[in-house]
Amino acid sequence: MSGFPRIEIIGITGIPEIVEGDDLSKMIVDAARDQGTPLVDKDILVVTQKVVSKSEGRLVNINGVVPSAFASQLAADMGKDARLVELVLQESRSIVRMDVDRGVMITETKHGFVCANAGIDASNVPGDDWVCLLPVDSDRSARGIRQAIAALTGGAEIGIVISDTFGRAWREGHSNFAIGVAGVELMKDYRGTLDANDRELKATTIAVVDELAAAAEMVTAKAINVPVALIRGYEHGTSSPEGIKPMIRERSRDLFR
Amino acid sequence: MSGFPRIEIIGITGIPEIVEGDDLSKMIVDAARDQGTPLVDKDILVVTQKVVSKSEGRLVNINGVVPSAFASQLAADMGKDARLVELVLQESRSIVRMDVDRGVMITETKHGFVCANAGIDASNVPGDDWVCLLPVDSDRSARGIRQAIAALTGGAEIGIVISDTFGRAWREGHSNFAIGVAGVELMKDYRGTLDANDRELKATTIAVVDELAAAAEMVTAKAINVPVALIRGYEHGTSSPEGIKPMIRERSRDLFR
Repeated sequence: MSGFPRIEIIGITGIPEIVEGDDLSKMIVDAARDQGTPLVDKDILVVTQKVVSKSEGRLVNINGVVPSAFASQLAADMGKDARLVELVLQESRSIVRMDVDRGVMITETKHGFVCANAGIDASNVPGDDWVCLLPVDSDRSARGIRQAIAALTGGAEIGIVISDTFGRAWREGHSNFAIGVAGVELMKDYRGTLDANDRELKATTIAVVDELAAAAEMVTAKAINVPVALIRGYEHGTSSPEGIKPMIRERSRDLFR
Repeated sequence: MSGFPRIEIIGITGIPEIVEGDDLSKMIVDAARDQGTPLVDKDILVVTQKVVSKSEGRLVNINGVVPSAFASQLAADMGKDARLVELVLQESRSIVRMDVDRGVMITETKHGFVCANAGIDASNVPGDDWVCLLPVDSDRSARGIRQAIAALTGGAEIGIVISDTFGRAWREGHSNFAIGVAGVELMKDYRGTLDANDRELKATTIAVVDELAAAAEMVTAKAINVPVALIRGYEHGTSSPEGIKPMIRERSRDLFR
C-alpha cells in the first residue's frame, strides 16, 4: 500500500487581481494557508508569468509606443497594430522566423527564449490599451519569491518555477515552459548512468523544470483565476545557481534557428 | 478546505519486465490494484512507449539489418553502427535535420513525429544486439489498452496516453510527449473564449496530452521500473476520434521543418 511515487498538483485559489507593487509572495503564502494547504519544505510553486509581471509593473500602455518605420511597414503587411509590433521588436534580441502573410513573428527575447511575439500578451490585462511584458529578469523574480516565502514561513525551502505558455516546433498547441527558477534543479542528467542492462540511456537529460511547468498547467489553465500551482511530493535537487540559462540551447548548437 | 483543483500523479510499480505477447493491460490493472490504487472511471494512464513496443514485439535484432550504401556512408562519417543508421532511415518518412559531424539525425517518423533517430532506442533492451522501435500505430495501441482495461474492470473508462521522450528545438533537455491517445481530448481550445476582460487569450490552444505526458515523467523518469503513471483528478474530455494526428503540425504550416 506504499512505496510507490505519488505527487500532488494543487491549484492555489483566492489570489486577487495583482497590481504593481503587490506583495505576491505574501498573497501566495496566505492563499495557500487559507485553502488548507499551507506551504511546507520541499514544495514547489509554479507561478505563472503574468502575475509576476503585473506585480513588477511590466504592463505597458501602447499609446506611449512610437513605432519605427520598419515596425510600421511590418504591421501594415501583417494587419497588426504598429505599436504592438514595435514593442515586439524592442523586446527581442533577434527574429527567428517571420511569416508576414500569416502575421507570425517568432523571436528570441532578450532573455533568450524563443517564442511568438517576444512573449508579449494582451489578454487578462486591464484595459484595451495595455499589454504585458515578460519580467526583466525572471530568475531574479523567482529568487525574490523564494526568499520572501522563506522569511514569511519561518524558513520553508520552496522551489520556485516561473512559467509561461509558448508554442512549439513540429506540434500544434501550446505548452507551459519554465522562464525563471530558484531552488529547483533544472535538469536530471542520466548521461553516463546505466540502465538495467548496463547500456546508455537514450534520453540523456530530462528538462525537469519544463515538465513541472507543464504539469502545473493542468490546474492553472482552465481557471484563469488560479495563477499558481503547488507541486508536492516531487523529490528534486534544489541547486539552480545559473538560473534558467542552461536550459536555453546555444544558437551555435541549435539546428532550428 | 475544498473547492481548489487537486490532481494526483501516481507511479504504478510492480510491473515485471515486458516481453512480446504479454498482456500489458492486465499487468497494469493488477499492479495498480496490488499497490492499493485500483483504476477507476476518469483516471488517465500514461504508458511509456517502451513497454508498449516490447509487448507488441517491436524489438529488432540489428544483426538481421543490411545497411544500404547511403546508410553505410553516413554511419562511417558519423562514427555509428551502419545497421542502426539503416534502421533509422527505414523508420523515417523524411530527414528534418542532419548534422553529420555531431552524429545527429532528426527525422520525421512514419507516424509524423519529429525526433532524433526515428525514436529508435537501445536502452533497457535485453541484449546488445537489440533495439526498440516505436509501436507501428500508437493510437491503435492506446485504444487496445483502453478497451482491454474496460473489459478487465467491469467498464472503467480510462484515458490512455502513450508517451515517449523527445528532444525539443531551442531548449536543452528532453521531455515526454504523447505519441498515441485514446479517450483523452488532445487539446483545450480557448480560441474565441474571452478572458476576464473580454479580450482574446494569447495561448489559444493548450496541448493537454503532451502536458499529461510531461507530468507523468515526474514519477516514471528516475525509476525505470515504473513504466506507467496514473493521473487522477484531472477533468478532461474523452473524445479523441482522430488519435494523435491533429497534434502534429502540418509540414506546410511548420516554420521549423
